[in-house]
Amino acid sequence: VKILSGVFAGKTTGTPIALLIENHDQRAADYAHLQNKFRPGHADYTYQHKYGIRDYRGGGRASARETAIRVAAGAVAKQYLASLGIQVRGYLAQMGDIQCELRDWTLVDTNPFFCAHAEKIPQLEQLIQQLQREGDSIGARINLLVEGVGAGLGEPVFDRLDADIAHAMLSINATKGVEIGQGFAAVNQRGSAHRDALTPNGFTTNHAGGILGGISSGQTIHVSIALKPTSSIRLPVQSIDNHQQAAQVVVQGRHDPCVGLRATPIAEAMLAIVLLDHLLRFRGQCG
Amino acid sequence: VKILSGVFAGKTTGTPIALLIENHDQRAADYAHLQNKFRPGHADYTYQHKYGIRDYRGGGRASARETAIRVAAGAVAKQYLASLGIQVRGYLAQMGDIQCELRDWTLVDTNPFFCAHAEKIPQLEQLIQQLQREGDSIGARINLLVEGVGAGLGEPVFDRLDADIAHAMLSINATKGVEIGQGFAAVNQRGSAHRDALTPNGFTTNHAGGILGGISSGQTIHVSIALKPTSSIRLPVQSIDNHQQAAQVVVQGRHDPCVGLRATPIAEAMLAIVLLDHLLRFRGQCG
Amino acid sequence: VKILSGVFAGKTTGTPIALLIENHDQRAADYAHLQNKFRPGHADYTYQHKYGIRDYRGGGRASARETAIRVAAGAVAKQYLASLGIQVRGYLAQMGDIQCELRDWTLVDTNPFFCAHAEKIPQLEQLIQQLQREGDSIGARINLLVEGVGAGLGEPVFDRLDADIAHAMLSINATKGVEIGQGFAAVNQRGSAHRDALTPNGFTTNHAGGILGGISSGQTIHVSIALKPTSSIRLPVQSIDNHQQAAQVVVQGRHDPCVGLRATPIAEAMLAIVLLDHLLRFRGQCG
Amino acid sequence: VKILSGVFAGKTTGTPIALLIENHDQRAADYAHLQNKFRPGHADYTYQHKYGIRDYRGGGRASARETAIRVAAGAVAKQYLASLGIQVRGYLAQMGDIQCELRDWTLVDTNPFFCAHAEKIPQLEQLIQQLQREGDSIGARINLLVEGVGAGLGEPVFDRLDADIAHAMLSINATKGVEIGQGFAAVNQRGSAHRDALTPNGFTTNHAGGILGGISSGQTIHVSIALKPTSSIRLPVQSIDNHQQAAQVVVQGRHDPCVGLRATPIAEAMLAIVLLDHLLRFRGQCG
Repeated sequence: VKILSGVFAGKTTGTPIALLIENHDQRAADYAHLQNKFRPGHADYTYQHKYGIRDYRGGGRASARETAIRVAAGAVAKQYLASLGIQVRGYLAQMGDIQCELRDWTLVDTNPFFCAHAEKIPQLEQLIQQLQREGDSIGARINLLVEGVGAGLGEPVFDRLDADIAHAMLSINATKGVEIGQGFAAVNQRGSAHRDALTPNGFTTNHAGGILGGISSGQTIHVSIALKPTSSIRLPVQSIDNHQQAAQVVVQGRHDPCVGLRATPIAEAMLAIVLLDHLLRFRGQCG
Repeated sequence: VKILSGVFAGKTTGTPIALLIENHDQRAADYAHLQNKFRPGHADYTYQHKYGIRDYRGGGRASARETAIRVAAGAVAKQYLASLGIQVRGYLAQMGDIQCELRDWTLVDTNPFFCAHAEKIPQLEQLIQQLQREGDSIGARINLLVEGVGAGLGEPVFDRLDADIAHAMLSINATKGVEIGQGFAAVNQRGSAHRDALTPNGFTTNHAGGILGGISSGQTIHVSIALKPTSSIRLPVQSIDNHQQAAQVVVQGRHDPCVGLRATPIAEAMLAIVLLDHLLRFRGQCG
Repeated sequence: VKILSGVFAGKTTGTPIALLIENHDQRAADYAHLQNKFRPGHADYTYQHKYGIRDYRGGGRASARETAIRVAAGAVAKQYLASLGIQVRGYLAQMGDIQCELRDWTLVDTNPFFCAHAEKIPQLEQLIQQLQREGDSIGARINLLVEGVGAGLGEPVFDRLDADIAHAMLSINATKGVEIGQGFAAVNQRGSAHRDALTPNGFTTNHAGGILGGISSGQTIHVSIALKPTSSIRLPVQSIDNHQQAAQVVVQGRHDPCVGLRATPIAEAMLAIVLLDHLLRFRGQCG
Repeated sequence: VKILSGVFAGKTTGTPIALLIENHDQRAADYAHLQNKFRPGHADYTYQHKYGIRDYRGGGRASARETAIRVAAGAVAKQYLASLGIQVRGYLAQMGDIQCELRDWTLVDTNPFFCAHAEKIPQLEQLIQQLQREGDSIGARINLLVEGVGAGLGEPVFDRLDADIAHAMLSINATKGVEIGQGFAAVNQRGSAHRDALTPNGFTTNHAGGILGGISSGQTIHVSIALKPTSSIRLPVQSIDNHQQAAQVVVQGRHDPCVGLRATPIAEAMLAIVLLDHLLRFRGQCG
């Protein structure tokens, strides 16, 4: 990462920080045979229809390589949040039908799955190997927790904290869903069970996931996201070319069988950015 | 609804339309006994901690009464979208463990549940009556479909169409989750199954829910949201008062046992507003 | 002014404050004869060409009556700024060729011109009477001063404080120019004279008008604006109608011969709003 | 200029265009002796007070070198505007007391002053030489004209075209004032003279400068800006250092005696960017 502006003598200057990551690992040739074909599950089709032109090399702007710079920006946000005692962390909660619990945070950075559940790691490895053999892929769920946020971040209507978090999560490539707190489980919950009772010592439960009425309650913030399976797989698929003719697509290249494997740091970064933004707003409004 | 500005001689003038709905049905007395208590599951606690003051009468700005004006604004958006052949519709997909299918659109406006599945209506009625007797409540899932949107609405990174939809959905009171297309089901899908193949006659499936890379594909847009159960129920709950002392809360007043029952038109309105916004942007950028 | 929201029990709640001023003094009949004619100097022509429709009664949205609500909003901003020791004040600096100095702030609210120069008031009265007799009008210059703003409001590039002030001033009907500090006089100044020297006791002069590099310096902020003469005058003028045919326009009704006479509180209000906005941002960023 | 993104195979892709200009001509040593001193007329003082830190090398973000990238972005905007028949041009209208008329557009790019008045060029050269000898500087006025804009760009209240132009102009370093059309001359004009009469063949005059009610009228848009004299001059000036002690400042280095000399292309670029933005909005709203 090159720092182009905003840092002087090792400190941020308060003015915008510009970061640049140059991609020296591109292999445009990998994409040459796809130049005129729409890869199903990708943005090729929608970009072509919107703009009338597209950069076929890895999807252009739609490539998840773009998320690298979000992680860089998030690292700055996380550093500042940490100085205020706020910690943003995520882990792999599910891959295919393998559910992983939050057992041990220290494990997360020691395996390529960002898994916090030691017993499940061999299963995850096995599934990945199987998918690689089969030329297929799988979806994933990432859970995120934020600790140390005080009560008061967010606003009632327009930029509710949960709305801004949802916006940030759905801005990540391949994300198809987001939950705050109990999320979709709340559909089948009774109000008497869901609402979090209050005692002089605090809340007794946290079904709300740390946000009430669009504003943080001071409890741990819980966010969960769904990522679709990688669309670039070796298994052939029917598609069309730029001339609306039928064409088979086989994607070679270096693709993970689960985009969710890379998503944990990206989701952490986006969440950190949203929280820092709301923290600055809070300081502005509530001083 | 009073139209304060933006309409002249029966036509919109192009300048901002201001709408006013006066609430003549308020009963502040219903809330007097809650003046100093935080109602669990409500924004009372977070408003008090953010602003140091709160309008205790029905939650002030946090009241879902605020959504009435969204429905009014959405009605304007829907009318314009309809003139372009775009239809935004929703229905109750689940209440508690009662799942309702999309069988008959014409049914939706003829029952108080916005249910499109005739056989399930008696079950829904029964559940509501049971909840009313018990003084409890339940969550719901609303599904939304948009037909007639062409390919090209949205943008690659910042205001992706799915991100803006998620923002709008989570801005609705009581919403705890949002899905686009397959949503969380994608977590356990194979890439070979999820990605929607293309033929000269169009897509063969629609797991993406009509959005690829943040941009509409021209297929039907599918959105699903989760609403938590009503927090205002007769069953007592432990809480605290403004002085951090333990206090029991019992909410009287006129509350539905399922906020999801009222959410369908609100969600339709918010979705229509987002789509119209993106349609104008599309016209701006792509002419 | 009706307060529709955001105030409870005499205090602001932190949520948006909605104010409504109903216009009970309208005389639509005054405008009936102008229904199909474009009044020169007004927005009739541009609204018609932009929107294909226009509210001919007093210009619709283009009417300066819209500024009443700005003054109301500015009153809230001024009250908060005052609590921080910040004072936003303006006075009439010129009307036609009558130049008025800032001699006595206490005079400003005692005459209809917002003039701070006692000797000039009879001349202003005479000019207004003469214009009324002639059915003509005249332009004006308003000067604004802000005292008590500390150093640090603003930002380097995008929303510089001076840029945001200029935006707010040009958003006021009839404004044709804005100056910060020396303004256009700086064109013929030497750098050795213009730059404000610094001593341990502060700046020796204030040619910059309190803003350096887009950020407030802690000195008094000086803003000056030019307002064009009222376009609605009794003297007939050639124009065209909706069918592009030549048509004479004679505007009756109740129009001041100088819109600048009403502009001082409007300009103060807009300036107060910009400053409060930047103050909240400052608190957000610089804590 | 390096194009980092948004262009593929010689065409824009519709996604954001990132441009990078690396500064290989910096001489940080020129600024070392000023490290702890505030240069009067510069943003040193305000940056230090806002951020508590500043990049003393040429003012950091406050340096006018930042405007190079605006010119690059403006070049893209001008190219697209040109394809629609819209031309944005500027010229030096005044330097010190030398007033330059718009006599010959073809002259503008052939002299370092962007002067369109051949007879005045020797006077400008003489003044610059004199200022260089004296170690002093002078202010300037730039006039801008836009031809080919149709009626309808802009909006009534918030982002009026004139307000956005004023914002963009005041965002340029050293700008202290902006006028639209007659600007400050309107203060001493009669309404009967100022308002532009309409005939079936168009407007008879253009005192409004092409904007009425915040919306373009289809006439030529006239903008004029005032630039203060260069603050970095050889003549010594009293100032203070970081410890509030008196300190003399003498600025060496390579500074033009008139920043206005470089401002014409910058102002053209900013104006082009504003117009393109409004053009896209117009297309969005009015289709």
